[in-house]
Amino acid sequence: MSATTYHDTRLDARFGATRFAARGRADVLPAQRLLSGRIVRTPVVRSEELDRRAGARIWLKAENLQRGGSFKLRGALLAVSRLAGDGASGVIAQSTGNHAIAVALAARDNALPAVLVLPPDVSPGKLDAVRTAGGEVVLEGANPAERSAVVERLRAERGWAVVDPWEDPDVVAGQSTASAELIDQVWTAGGALDTIVVPVGGGSVLAGACLASAGLGIDIVGAEPAAVPALTEALRAGRPVAVPVRPTIADGLRPDIIGRLPFEICRTGVSRVITVDEAAIADALCLALLHARLLVEPAAATSLAGALALLDETDNEARDVGVLLTGGNVDPALVARLLGERDSRAGAA
Amino acid sequence: MSATTYHDTRLDARFGATRFAARGRADVLPAQRLLSGRIVRTPVVRSEELDRRAGARIWLKAENLQRGGSFKLRGALLAVSRLAGDGASGVIAQSTGNHAIAVALAARDNALPAVLVLPPDVSPGKLDAVRTAGGEVVLEGANPAERSAVVERLRAERGWAVVDPWEDPDVVAGQSTASAELIDQVWTAGGALDTIVVPVGGGSVLAGACLASAGLGIDIVGAEPAAVPALTEALRAGRPVAVPVRPTIADGLRPDIIGRLPFEICRTGVSRVITVDEAAIADALCLALLHARLLVEPAAATSLAGALALLDETDNEARDVGVLLTGGNVDPALVARLLGERDSRAGAA
Repeated sequence: MSATTYHDTRLDARFGATRFAARGRADVLPAQRLLSGRIVRTPVVRSEELDRRAGARIWLKAENLQRGGSFKLRGALLAVSRLAGDGASGVIAQSTGNHAIAVALAARDNALPAVLVLPPDVSPGKLDAVRTAGGEVVLEGANPAERSAVVERLRAERGWAVVDPWEDPDVVAGQSTASAELIDQVWTAGGALDTIVVPVGGGSVLAGACLASAGLGIDIVGAEPAAVPALTEALRAGRPVAVPVRPTIADGLRPDIIGRLPFEICRTGVSRVITVDEAAIADALCLALLHARLLVEPAAATSLAGALALLDETDNEARDVGVLLTGGNVDPALVARLLGERDSRAGAA
Repeated sequence: MSATTYHDTRLDARFGATRFAARGRADVLPAQRLLSGRIVRTPVVRSEELDRRAGARIWLKAENLQRGGSFKLRGALLAVSRLAGDGASGVIAQSTGNHAIAVALAARDNALPAVLVLPPDVSPGKLDAVRTAGGEVVLEGANPAERSAVVERLRAERGWAVVDPWEDPDVVAGQSTASAELIDQVWTAGGALDTIVVPVGGGSVLAGACLASAGLGIDIVGAEPAAVPALTEALRAGRPVAVPVRPTIADGLRPDIIGRLPFEICRTGVSRVITVDEAAIADALCLALLHARLLVEPAAATSLAGALALLDETDNEARDVGVLLTGGNVDPALVARLLGERDSRAGAA
């Protein structure tokens, strides 16, 4: 799929609207309208303590409070609803977890069966959530390429439709609504974002941020674990490339390659990419929990860590920084461990 | 102060309004107007998993996301702003923590100094928060009576004004706005509360819930730790009585006696009181964290535990239950311990 044709015209038919432009904000409001009442307009949370540390106003978009525990429901609902309308008899998706939860919920909302292909080491909480939402689970494939092969096999066997987490234009349009809401909410609250920091997995929500902010003069910054620098390497290579994956607690950001469609949008829409190490991700998770009182997963903490790193730079002049806290599906044992380690360090200090 | 004169007419002057009735909803909208833009209109959070467990729709009012980490800022801002307008040169308050944080913040907002009297075993996080807000701290007095004696001594020495956490009508009017927002927010979202569950410490926010819900046919239910059944015993005695305090993790609910003004409002406004044990409080804290992704303190978890106990009764017919999650100032080590214990039990099961 080329970069200039990612918009799916079937969405237009639903609105009786004219054809959208291929690369701007035109997808965003229609997506918001379709999703209205079916997703949570998640709150934007402030913390005086975080602001003090950062030396700027931090606006946390709490997508951990979204149905299914992450922003992924936005894109999945648009995509699955369209597939249901087109007569699909079931849906298939591969995921590290959150896209699978979202597709399972969206399928349930549309009375369709869903099968989800997850890595064998999927976070136990995410696995439970997929099953609670009624999804059938196949545990196979350590990376997107391996899981996509399983998806193809299932498609051939069952004839169901595939909901790609990155290459589907409906998904990217859906994800854009998270940033669009954030921009609106900050504006309404008297701020004016100069920067939005977004974590990078397959890239769909970062691409969505680019669409939502187009023309507004807002810097879109990607944050990725140093362990999986897929966007950094893609920008260097000029195309998506698979990177070696080192261990990271950010299980949601383990895809070793950025999607083609997100990359085409991000390569021009993103101002810069920041990589953060594991300690910074763990610290940011604890900061979000203790100062913003929000439980976020490490993938979401990666964007807060990126924002804090950005604001720590001496020449940074950002004043209103949006942070997309993308999800909150994290295992209790990990949270207990990170808090315990933090407490031990505080005791030793 | 008698129960029929708790309304302070100085508030009227600020609005140029007529005198309010002494016992109804009349205080609530003026309090909301005064607080508008100075506090957070905290979100109401849902969780499909909590709803499923409860067999009802649970609407969580996330006052843990309030400035200062609890609802207490609402009443403190009204009271301290009025005292500042009346020419006070400083403010004094006693508290288990959250009222102190709130008074320190409200004093800072009004450019007044504040001294806060806290129990020697105050939660370390709350102590830090009081100091970060610029409050001077005196650690003395295990219970309200002992701390009030210290407050009197400080008042005599400094001539500053006292902000009582329970007996001040401005405080109760301020606390009412939390429930008023909750009722509005649920209505806007398509629900209609039949019950609101509120934790009981000194009783100000429970009394506020009675004011906000007056005439609406909503059952107001108090939830208190079995370790400190101050409202249960007060209702039995027909007046506030000090109860023996057994250990509880709900440090915010340790006052051994309910306030006189809150009691006068609650004795007729409250439908019933539920006591919950320590295990139920700990479990509810983990449920709020893992399913609603909100970090709440044990006092706030007490109301969720109360709601779940209520909904577990076979003859209960509540369908839309509001839960006031009153605060989120909790020590990381306690959260790590509760999560760890939960994880161990899950592993053993």
